[in-house]
Amino acid sequence: MQELKIYEHKVQYYETDQMAIVHHSNYIRWFEEARNFALEAAGFGYKKMEDCGIIIPVLDISAKYKTMTHFGDTVCIQMKIDVYNGTRLKILYHNFDKETKEVRCTGKSSHCFLNKEGNLVSLKCSYPEIHQVFENMKA
Amino acid sequence: MQELKIYEHKVQYYETDQMAIVHHSNYIRWFEEARNFALEAAGFGYKKMEDCGIIIPVLDISAKYKTMTHFGDTVCIQMKIDVYNGTRLKILYHNFDKETKEVRCTGKSSHCFLNKEGNLVSLKCSYPEIHQVFENMKA
Amino acid sequence: MQELKIYEHKVQYYETDQMAIVHHSNYIRWFEEARNFALEAAGFGYKKMEDCGIIIPVLDISAKYKTMTHFGDTVCIQMKIDVYNGTRLKILYHNFDKETKEVRCTGKSSHCFLNKEGNLVSLKCSYPEIHQVFENMKA
Amino acid sequence: MQELKIYEHKVQYYETDQMAIVHHSNYIRWFEEARNFALEAAGFGYKKMEDCGIIIPVLDISAKYKTMTHFGDTVCIQMKIDVYNGTRLKILYHNFDKETKEVRCTGKSSHCFLNKEGNLVSLKCSYPEIHQVFENMKA
Repeated sequence: MQELKIYEHKVQYYETDQMAIVHHSNYIRWFEEARNFALEAAGFGYKKMEDCGIIIPVLDISAKYKTMTHFGDTVCIQMKIDVYNGTRLKILYHNFDKETKEVRCTGKSSHCFLNKEGNLVSLKCSYPEIHQVFENMKA
Repeated sequence: MQELKIYEHKVQYYETDQMAIVHHSNYIRWFEEARNFALEAAGFGYKKMEDCGIIIPVLDISAKYKTMTHFGDTVCIQMKIDVYNGTRLKILYHNFDKETKEVRCTGKSSHCFLNKEGNLVSLKCSYPEIHQVFENMKA
Repeated sequence: MQELKIYEHKVQYYETDQMAIVHHSNYIRWFEEARNFALEAAGFGYKKMEDCGIIIPVLDISAKYKTMTHFGDTVCIQMKIDVYNGTRLKILYHNFDKETKEVRCTGKSSHCFLNKEGNLVSLKCSYPEIHQVFENMKA
Repeated sequence: MQELKIYEHKVQYYETDQMAIVHHSNYIRWFEEARNFALEAAGFGYKKMEDCGIIIPVLDISAKYKTMTHFGDTVCIQMKIDVYNGTRLKILYHNFDKETKEVRCTGKSSHCFLNKEGNLVSLKCSYPEIHQVFENMKA
């Protein structure tokens, strides 16, 4: 088992809205940042996956907003592989403030794996090297 | 009961990503566009609400992505008030292609009502005029 | 000569920042919206151009911010072809409030034409039908 | 004189468009990231400025796009104070690839200083501590 490193994001001014907090849509983007960070940390970045012909679309996403994030904050995103079975992937996100550790947001996403023709693939069968990346990321 | 008008959004180039489809985070923004459109159609736009001292934060959001949206498409978002009881609001979204009617995405959001001090308010008690707007929007 | 229709954009909540005005980066996106609207109005949308193998990258862009745009405003963008000679395109943008007509922003962009191999092309020589679209758009 | 540190930005997937490159509007946002990074490095972050009652709006902006940026790249933004005289600020940006050093984009922005009432202020006269921050940033 490989401990997933925590991803840090510095909140930008353009991510705020006129409530003077981060607009809720940005957390969805930060989940993606965390996913790509984790893949890169695992030695097989998403760019390399696309180059191998694998696309990992988002099937569904959800977020629960607990407390507000402000400009200048640094948010930490802890990611956990909830399910991975070679054809499906479910991820949990835990988003908290770097300084206070207060929880900002929790979330989930589900994914499948497609080849360039847009067909579902089993990484286990067809891309054992990538399969191993996700196996290693499972807690 | 008041039939909620369907909101239309023309997909912009900057909403696409390198998969050559709309990035999934934009659907969350379109849900917001649809909410604000519905409030305005109901004669009480969100700007007017903020001017009255009412803020309607997003407590949670979820989206299920069914099919892909492309640059130049027009997407329709049909919104339905699932729950409204004066203090809480749950909305359902049904996002489909204008031409083919194919479902693109479905979603949900939950909201509460805050005053300028950040305290929970009951619209029913404190803002009967706004309460009526949401009552009218319920199917 | 063909009069270019004015493009209208309804300002969205997610386009605001914590100054409670539209974030300046969004005007650059609205310029793109106006370009694509104008091409479509001219009967040859940008999607159709890409399908024909023509890409129109932005070489440079500039914007002068005159007054502030707020959530809920409708902004109008009037576009004018400043230069078009078959290989280069320069566009001027005049962005004003729909109600008050007050100028919000003016801008410019420059473009060239590339084929799918990424080579510069002369529309005049190689794509006379698209060339005519831009000729018609010139004032 | 204080050497301005170079700001680094890791390119995110949601910043790409269907040309499979970074959408041009994002560079404008990166300029802002670089400005806020520089202020923070100078010990007086933008949040602190807003807390002091100073707002620094963008008066104009321009960018020249030289080469394309891709998902996964790290871009470096070198910022230089071109003009600072207590009431006006002009900044130059030089954006290049971290690995190859190839220039991606150059840009400029102009700014003034407003107080909370929206009036122009001279930092030199009214906010000498902030004035010194910009004086120190001048090359």
